[in-house]
Amino acid sequence: MKPKFFHHPSALVESASVGAGTRIWAFAHVLKGAHIGRNCTIGDHCFIEGGARVGHNVTIKNGVMLWEGVTIRDNVFIGPHVIFTNDRAPRSPRSPLVSAKYHTKEWISPTCVETGATVGAGAIVLCGVRLGRFCLVGAGAVVTKDVPAYALVTGVPALVRGHVCQCGERLAFKAGRARCPRCRAKYRLNSSLVSPIHR
Amino acid sequence: MKPKFFHHPSALVESASVGAGTRIWAFAHVLKGAHIGRNCTIGDHCFIEGGARVGHNVTIKNGVMLWEGVTIRDNVFIGPHVIFTNDRAPRSPRSPLVSAKYHTKEWISPTCVETGATVGAGAIVLCGVRLGRFCLVGAGAVVTKDVPAYALVTGVPALVRGHVCQCGERLAFKAGRARCPRCRAKYRLNSSLVSPIHR
Amino acid sequence: MKPKFFHHPSALVESASVGAGTRIWAFAHVLKGAHIGRNCTIGDHCFIEGGARVGHNVTIKNGVMLWEGVTIRDNVFIGPHVIFTNDRAPRSPRSPLVSAKYHTKEWISPTCVETGATVGAGAIVLCGVRLGRFCLVGAGAVVTKDVPAYALVTGVPALVRGHVCQCGERLAFKAGRARCPRCRAKYRLNSSLVSPIHR
Repeated sequence: MKPKFFHHPSALVESASVGAGTRIWAFAHVLKGAHIGRNCTIGDHCFIEGGARVGHNVTIKNGVMLWEGVTIRDNVFIGPHVIFTNDRAPRSPRSPLVSAKYHTKEWISPTCVETGATVGAGAIVLCGVRLGRFCLVGAGAVVTKDVPAYALVTGVPALVRGHVCQCGERLAFKAGRARCPRCRAKYRLNSSLVSPIHR
Repeated sequence: MKPKFFHHPSALVESASVGAGTRIWAFAHVLKGAHIGRNCTIGDHCFIEGGARVGHNVTIKNGVMLWEGVTIRDNVFIGPHVIFTNDRAPRSPRSPLVSAKYHTKEWISPTCVETGATVGAGAIVLCGVRLGRFCLVGAGAVVTKDVPAYALVTGVPALVRGHVCQCGERLAFKAGRARCPRCRAKYRLNSSLVSPIHR
Repeated sequence: MKPKFFHHPSALVESASVGAGTRIWAFAHVLKGAHIGRNCTIGDHCFIEGGARVGHNVTIKNGVMLWEGVTIRDNVFIGPHVIFTNDRAPRSPRSPLVSAKYHTKEWISPTCVETGATVGAGAIVLCGVRLGRFCLVGAGAVVTKDVPAYALVTGVPALVRGHVCQCGERLAFKAGRARCPRCRAKYRLNSSLVSPIHR
């Protein structure tokens, strides 16, 4: 039985691995070998390459491209026109000078966006980095290194400017403790690392 | 009688509110409930969501997405791949942790681009801001707050670097007065605000 | 006899000047009057305007737009969503205030990317600049002036941060000489200009 996902008639879906309840919108292109979980939305004009992996409940806004080597975990939000990469020092593989580099796949640097994270509109994520759980990358940031869990990063290059709750709200720590003003979740800050306090 | 606008055969136009003389190009998608005025051009691969509003004589270059909450007034130029947003702290609405936030539309922060303004290529406009009449946002700027009328802003975050004429030319003020070297229009600068001097 | 290039069935190719061995992917649009050389790849959702020129062995990743006035030479790599421009101070040509400016083509500022160069993902290239042979523009950079050959530039605005080999590897100069750690090519640094030492 085929999984029950929706795709707009103008979308091209060549992957056999798309979860139930997922919706793929107009002019999007999902290649053979791409893996997409359940209950996701993939916006117009997206491109998902073979070897890219997307978890469950993920929202990918319009015009996003995911390459081989990119992993997106559950509940992640990827804003419009967010840009991923998978080659630290690209040259045209068609150039006779560098074609040897592209005979194997050793040139691929993997990238991972952990559960519940947000990557804001138009942000650029260099390859070989890990974006921690529930972090929030601001719109237009250029991420050049790992982002800690719950961190808010903005700018070029992206730097830590504060912390956010799993619901996205800013956290204000006092004596190493914070409570989210919206959803009331509690957190501890220890050696610049945030962790939730489970009741 | 239907309004006489043109759309490329590959474009998807689901809105009943597109003005006469407007042209919508290849692989663009205009959703139901989007409003587009007369004599506009909407480039290839654009996406106009229901609730977005576009005035008359507007040029929207390729790959631009306009969301619900975004208003573009008359005579505006939106460069290629300009990015708008409508949520200050987005999370995946499909995540069980935050889905409640998305049950109403209170999360939408509106954005307005006033008459005659220019938003340069690849600029990113955070939501909840107003871009003043005839301002010019430089290519690649990240706009995080309101932009005054006639201001030139560039950088990340975008800061005021000077002023421009309604024709786009740079203005050089001397003793609070400037005359455009191209179109001869005259301006007054008062408490950092520019206003035209009408003859 | 027609040149033997491939295009995806969903691509629109209106140019009669596309070289043999070139591949044009899904939802791309190549306009009449665009020139594309041999053995190139043009990714999904690209847009190549009439008057744009692309050499041989060029890799253009997804979502790139090339305008009239933009020239890309042989063996170049253009990353995903790289943005070119061709108007220094754009306004909507449909606005009655500025339409005269657009009656001729004097408003176009040409841009050239020289042989073997790389423009990283999401970089923005202002018009009227020349990107030198084998230079490497980092992801997310905003290029506002000419880039020297073999230079590595990053940031907003893009500044020279170092130098790279023709294969893309970083070069470390000592007493004005460097040898590439990967491909063993040799270079000379003289008055901040890099040139290859041919054996």
